Amino acid sequence: MNIYADRISQVRSLMRERGYDALVITGSDPHCSEYFSSRWCQVKYLSGFGGEAGDLVITEDHAGLWTDSRYFIAASQVLPEAGVALHKTRQVDSVMIPQWLSGKDFGEGKEGPIVIAVDGRSQSYGSVKAIDSAMKEAGREYEIVNVPDILDELWEGRPPIPQTPLITLGEDITGESRLQRLNFLRKFLLMNGYDAVLLTALDEVAWVLNVRGNDIPYNPLVISFLLVTMDEAYWFVQKEEIPPSDTESADSFDEVLEDGVQILPYADTGATIVDLMEGGEDGEGGIDKLFLDPSTLNYDLYCTLNEHALPGSLVMGGSPVPLRKAVKNPVEIEGMREAHFEDGLAMEEFLYWLEKTVQSGQRVDEWDAACYLHSRRERIDGFRGESFETISAYGPSAALPHYVTPMEDAPVLEPRGLYLCDSGGQYLFGTTDITRTVPLGPCTYEEKEDYTLVLKGHIHLAMAVFPKGTAGCQLDVLAREALWKKNRNFGHGTGHGVGFYLCVHEGPQEFRQNFNPQPLLPGMITSDEPGIYREGLYGIRHESLLLCVDGGKNEFGQWYCFEPMTLCHIDTSPVLVELLTEEERRYLNEYNAGVYSKLSGSLPEEVRVWLKKKTERL
Amino acid sequence: MNIYADRISQVRSLMRERGYDALVITGSDPHCSEYFSSRWCQVKYLSGFGGEAGDLVITEDHAGLWTDSRYFIAASQVLPEAGVALHKTRQVDSVMIPQWLSGKDFGEGKEGPIVIAVDGRSQSYGSVKAIDSAMKEAGREYEIVNVPDILDELWEGRPPIPQTPLITLGEDITGESRLQRLNFLRKFLLMNGYDAVLLTALDEVAWVLNVRGNDIPYNPLVISFLLVTMDEAYWFVQKEEIPPSDTESADSFDEVLEDGVQILPYADTGATIVDLMEGGEDGEGGIDKLFLDPSTLNYDLYCTLNEHALPGSLVMGGSPVPLRKAVKNPVEIEGMREAHFEDGLAMEEFLYWLEKTVQSGQRVDEWDAACYLHSRRERIDGFRGESFETISAYGPSAALPHYVTPMEDAPVLEPRGLYLCDSGGQYLFGTTDITRTVPLGPCTYEEKEDYTLVLKGHIHLAMAVFPKGTAGCQLDVLAREALWKKNRNFGHGTGHGVGFYLCVHEGPQEFRQNFNPQPLLPGMITSDEPGIYREGLYGIRHESLLLCVDGGKNEFGQWYCFEPMTLCHIDTSPVLVELLTEEERRYLNEYNAGVYSKLSGSLPEEVRVWLKKKTERL
Repeated sequence: MNIYADRISQVRSLMRERGYDALVITGSDPHCSEYFSSRWCQVKYLSGFGGEAGDLVITEDHAGLWTDSRYFIAASQVLPEAGVALHKTRQVDSVMIPQWLSGKDFGEGKEGPIVIAVDGRSQSYGSVKAIDSAMKEAGREYEIVNVPDILDELWEGRPPIPQTPLITLGEDITGESRLQRLNFLRKFLLMNGYDAVLLTALDEVAWVLNVRGNDIPYNPLVISFLLVTMDEAYWFVQKEEIPPSDTESADSFDEVLEDGVQILPYADTGATIVDLMEGGEDGEGGIDKLFLDPSTLNYDLYCTLNEHALPGSLVMGGSPVPLRKAVKNPVEIEGMREAHFEDGLAMEEFLYWLEKTVQSGQRVDEWDAACYLHSRRERIDGFRGESFETISAYGPSAALPHYVTPMEDAPVLEPRGLYLCDSGGQYLFGTTDITRTVPLGPCTYEEKEDYTLVLKGHIHLAMAVFPKGTAGCQLDVLAREALWKKNRNFGHGTGHGVGFYLCVHEGPQEFRQNFNPQPLLPGMITSDEPGIYREGLYGIRHESLLLCVDGGKNEFGQWYCFEPMTLCHIDTSPVLVELLTEEERRYLNEYNAGVYSKLSGSLPEEVRVWLKKKTERL
Repeated sequence: MNIYADRISQVRSLMRERGYDALVITGSDPHCSEYFSSRWCQVKYLSGFGGEAGDLVITEDHAGLWTDSRYFIAASQVLPEAGVALHKTRQVDSVMIPQWLSGKDFGEGKEGPIVIAVDGRSQSYGSVKAIDSAMKEAGREYEIVNVPDILDELWEGRPPIPQTPLITLGEDITGESRLQRLNFLRKFLLMNGYDAVLLTALDEVAWVLNVRGNDIPYNPLVISFLLVTMDEAYWFVQKEEIPPSDTESADSFDEVLEDGVQILPYADTGATIVDLMEGGEDGEGGIDKLFLDPSTLNYDLYCTLNEHALPGSLVMGGSPVPLRKAVKNPVEIEGMREAHFEDGLAMEEFLYWLEKTVQSGQRVDEWDAACYLHSRRERIDGFRGESFETISAYGPSAALPHYVTPMEDAPVLEPRGLYLCDSGGQYLFGTTDITRTVPLGPCTYEEKEDYTLVLKGHIHLAMAVFPKGTAGCQLDVLAREALWKKNRNFGHGTGHGVGFYLCVHEGPQEFRQNFNPQPLLPGMITSDEPGIYREGLYGIRHESLLLCVDGGKNEFGQWYCFEPMTLCHIDTSPVLVELLTEEERRYLNEYNAGVYSKLSGSLPEEVRVWLKKKTERL
């Protein structure tokens, strides 16, 4: 029996014992993070599926994994053997977990209500609420049971909650002090009449406190909760005894303490807040109105708080931090520019090495290439690791938008066709995310045409000029139009916000075929990454980060436009020039010329000469 | 004293007498219609503002009119003298009526709750609910009082509810019989477990019953409600005794009766439904679940029903009719093609006459031009009148997107600059809506540049190819991009759905900078009408109707595109060719060639020869 099928069968035994009709395990952690530490790789533990987005539902007669088009191919490679069905999300006719459960036949003649068990620690209050609403709306008789960490009893050697050294960032790097950011939250409390706000999303906590850690791969975060009242701030962060005094952490914690932030055990989060809501020992000065964001508040913590809270004392709403965090201040923008300059040098050196090495006939596989790129970034002062796992993908590998490059037996790069590299770095002064697709030798006409159409979309969006109030979903078509005209498309979003030495994916703005109303604002940094994927053949994606900037004001209103942050040339050799408009050709030439003029002075001579040629006008 | 200021002052006296702190009068009728008969021109009666969209709030110290950018200029011409302030809607920072009321200071030390009076007959349940929610959310102490037809006692000679002759349409014209459409509703009831649905929107009633009338100018509607149960259909339509037997109506009513539809007095709508909900006299077979659309159910009728309904028996939701009605069937599409063919002939004859007459030095004013166009349409068999009031606008007049051409002293057309005509016809077999902007002589560079940029947007949208699931708001940018690039814009939506011999504006799809998620579907007919408006100078708009059609299927999914329905050439003489892409130029040439080839055989010889020249390749 397949190891995963076996584990699912163990779960089913447990469910039968306890009378659960369905178990929902979400691919997330107690902070509803997109990426999470190995402790919460529960979906992977049960199904073998390791994509970044995947939720599992197990019933007596069905096990299903819900994920989006980025992972359809990867999912279909592991799920069948585990006996898990793939449920496609983000499709026009997708049936999401709440609707699926509400329409599911749990057997005729079953007595009593349907019991839906949810691992409340790994999923948001909002997502459990959605199940609740759907069941109610469908008129089902049901009960939702919270089973936090239910896998603990089956999962031998489950990793502990990580606790890595802490680093703090000064105002010279973030542009705002810890106290300024705490005051931003206090102003929010004052204006809304709340007594406290609990930050549950890890990047929000890191942003407010100007702290970073390494608790989650690629995401410089510290697993913790932050409660801010008008007078106090409580940081629930200690996972072990006391932070070891022999690491840099000790000093860093001191710095946070000096700003009046109390440091408390992570495990006590719920109990401490309940205490504060009950007014402490003397019954005075308690929290009467606590503001929480249902999209990142885990259901288990909600249950703890709700059990003791007075009616109306838990106020749910969107956290004010994401929007404020997304609009980078001038110091952050300067840091991001620096990060892109350094990252661009590393990328150009990498692409130079790649071309020379492959063309000279030396054996290089996808993994080697990723390692070489890492070695270039590693030399940069302030480099703190990749911002996500490098996708180093040659030919058919690149047809998987979120391909995982294998360490062993990775495909070898041949001097023909297209190679795609999607990577990014975390630096003390910013975060990068870049994709370049480059020819390793001769390309087919279809490869060139696809390469050009995707590039047209990339440029079209980058050149956009738009009035204040415009949302990313209203511009998304610009990145797709050239492909659509040829009846081609890509199944992922066109762009995501990028944090400042924080998560490489952040909201609230995005470019996507949805109805996200968040307007784009000057200071926001968003990726522009259309692509195309030909299963079994190749994949193409062109990605740069765009900074939204002021474009002037006139009688028609306030105008905004974009400025590319990414500094790495776009290879023009596969471009079918006749498919570009004059405007697109001019943009491409100017972009490449800009890359050369900014980077050339800092590149090794042979790379500079090579780049000069690469950036010749088309 | 200004007559409107005087009326508002009378209203204030009445409000003081009855203790109302605010009175809300919506510019609509008991069916929440966009256009309505003179009986419900209440906003105009009070403020002098006659735009199609305008809502009024009167308090002791403020009178305000809420309207959108189409009417800013018109509103600013009449409101100041009436002492009414303009509140702009559809702006990024618009404060709508509910928010305005909830934030309004009604005077310190006022005793008791704030009393908000609403004319429930002239506004939707949804809009009153929005006021209720906003007041609740703001923590105000308030009370909402329904004051249906409150103006009755002040308004001398208020027009009665109209009752015009009825006509019925056969299956050969609509493609579906009355019974088929009733069955569509009964299937909806069955699938959802409802006992009845009440149609409150007039075009929905007309569509289901295959009836038309003339109760509202330009909208071939019959003021009535339709209640459909599994076995019965009740049409609340009689405004007087009995339909006069000497008009075509008598026969038409017979036809509807023969299909098992009961005809009842309009005034009895609420009482009859209450009766049916209470199960009738024998207490059996009553309506336990009644489905209603809160967006077109008036608040007064809601109050009547709610007073007698058992909890849970009124189910609110979006009516299933608009989407089904928007997707035209093959017979309707054929009819629409025929309407556009006939309408195109009339338009070409009009444009020919216009050019010749103005250039010959004859005196023609805007009103004369509109009359001549009417005379061309009037000759068409099946013409039932304009589909909205013709906008015949020369020079600065056209800068008002919804200009009303005055019957007397209309501006005279001179042999220079641009003339804009936005008009449409109602035909027994379809509805048209077209805008053409034409030069009457030499144009300035700015006029030509604006003309070309707007045309680029019009063409860009018309050429769109897009995957299944795409909504109009996701394509809207295509119509604006060329203008945006030059920091220019227009303040109205880009396109609206058009009915089949029904309202010229219908949902649910549209092209607009909003977040309306309704996907475009084959069979939908939507206008494509970008524009630009230069106050005091000129206005430009290019409008054709687009039919959404199947664009084939491939490995990337199902594709859709558009086919222009409108048949009238676009004048190429003001076009700055160098601003068009090759693709746009090709589209324009092919469109004009198509117009010529389809219409030329049916045009008078001199018009044909002229059109041949007008449609020469650019």
